[in-house]
Amino acid sequence: MSNPTAAMVVIGDEILSGRTRDANMHYLAGQLTEAGISLEEVRVVSDVHERIVAAVREMSDTYDHVFTSGGIGPTHDDITADAIGAAFGKNVDIRADARDLLSAHYARTGSELNEARLRMARIPDDAVLIDNPVSVAPGFRLNNVYVMAGVPSVFQAMVASVLPTLTGGAPLLSKTLRIDRGEGDIAGPLGLVAQEHPHLSIGSYPFQKDGRFGSNIVIRGTDAAELEAVGSDLVARLDAVTS
Amino acid sequence: MSNPTAAMVVIGDEILSGRTRDANMHYLAGQLTEAGISLEEVRVVSDVHERIVAAVREMSDTYDHVFTSGGIGPTHDDITADAIGAAFGKNVDIRADARDLLSAHYARTGSELNEARLRMARIPDDAVLIDNPVSVAPGFRLNNVYVMAGVPSVFQAMVASVLPTLTGGAPLLSKTLRIDRGEGDIAGPLGLVAQEHPHLSIGSYPFQKDGRFGSNIVIRGTDAAELEAVGSDLVARLDAVTS
Repeated sequence: MSNPTAAMVVIGDEILSGRTRDANMHYLAGQLTEAGISLEEVRVVSDVHERIVAAVREMSDTYDHVFTSGGIGPTHDDITADAIGAAFGKNVDIRADARDLLSAHYARTGSELNEARLRMARIPDDAVLIDNPVSVAPGFRLNNVYVMAGVPSVFQAMVASVLPTLTGGAPLLSKTLRIDRGEGDIAGPLGLVAQEHPHLSIGSYPFQKDGRFGSNIVIRGTDAAELEAVGSDLVARLDAVTS
Repeated sequence: MSNPTAAMVVIGDEILSGRTRDANMHYLAGQLTEAGISLEEVRVVSDVHERIVAAVREMSDTYDHVFTSGGIGPTHDDITADAIGAAFGKNVDIRADARDLLSAHYARTGSELNEARLRMARIPDDAVLIDNPVSVAPGFRLNNVYVMAGVPSVFQAMVASVLPTLTGGAPLLSKTLRIDRGEGDIAGPLGLVAQEHPHLSIGSYPFQKDGRFGSNIVIRGTDAAELEAVGSDLVARLDAVTS
């Protein structure tokens, strides 16, 4: 696949404890697929400096783009900015551009820009701010890493700020066939069709609905007409097996 | 932290494409937390052999327990068993114990144990099977890695089989009753039996076969004789309802 690649690092004790069900991964995955960028890996790591540093370094070396969510708020456990700085050997301190955004915002809303809130202006040297139209405190990009908030509404707004700046490949299209038979019944013909079209991604995702097993067959590629043709071919072969 | 540590590897093109929102991570996170096991990291990797091998090796070296979900079905894209074997240098082939489970199941249900379904008996040498009371095809444990299905109902049943072995309690046994009636028909007596035995876990997993609804009732506990007795009691009460 020649589309750009991406990975995500979720900084999330609250996901790992089961208290919160992740929403950002699912959102980003859909957005990237639409944009023709291939999300290849996601890591959910706990709020531990060394783990964030290690994951970000490895993902940054391996994939074209890396997106992080979480840990850029005002409390003591928001350690993402320092971890990103450490990952790339950059100094991290309160930066004038970020502080100006915050002070204007808090002056407007009548809140105090206290020490805690000022933590949200801690940005690594050479990083470029990411616009936050929801709650002002910015994200940032350093090298190929986009650092964004964990709150879903803010995360989504930041993704909207960032995505147009990325060059995607041809949008990856998908055709889904819902087959009311279990995978064991259809695996033979399905495997043959997959072999005959090695440049397409053909996945089988079993489901159980009302006690009945079925399979969603997802054919992915960039040519809509080809997806239709392969889908019809597969359905015909499965019908032949049935009758 | 002195609690045992755990990590999860989700084998999931369908998660990374945004087509499906992960449910297993959230489920496992909650279960492990309840059990006093600390989930420290989750990786979602694409269905690529080398990536699965690398993730499993690294997580197995780093954490006490590793759980995987996905990729153990009968289709061409189910490559997890081979990846786990490769991660630990173990041969992977159709194993007699797994094949016997499948052949008994398909004989019972009148389906053919074809070549595709036999793929689900491919188990690495030295692995220990994980009970699958929902759809029989087993998971397995190899070293500290627990390999489980991606379908949430099956994943959850396998977690229920595995978790008691981690907390050091008495092994949890299960008795499965295949009832040829839908859940709506049996819910009354089933609920009474569950109420009378609060220390047992009694689950109902509906299915539909040849246009008829049925239910697999799974009773879990530590006393084999008690499971037999409760199972017989339940069958008797259901017969009384029928007649």
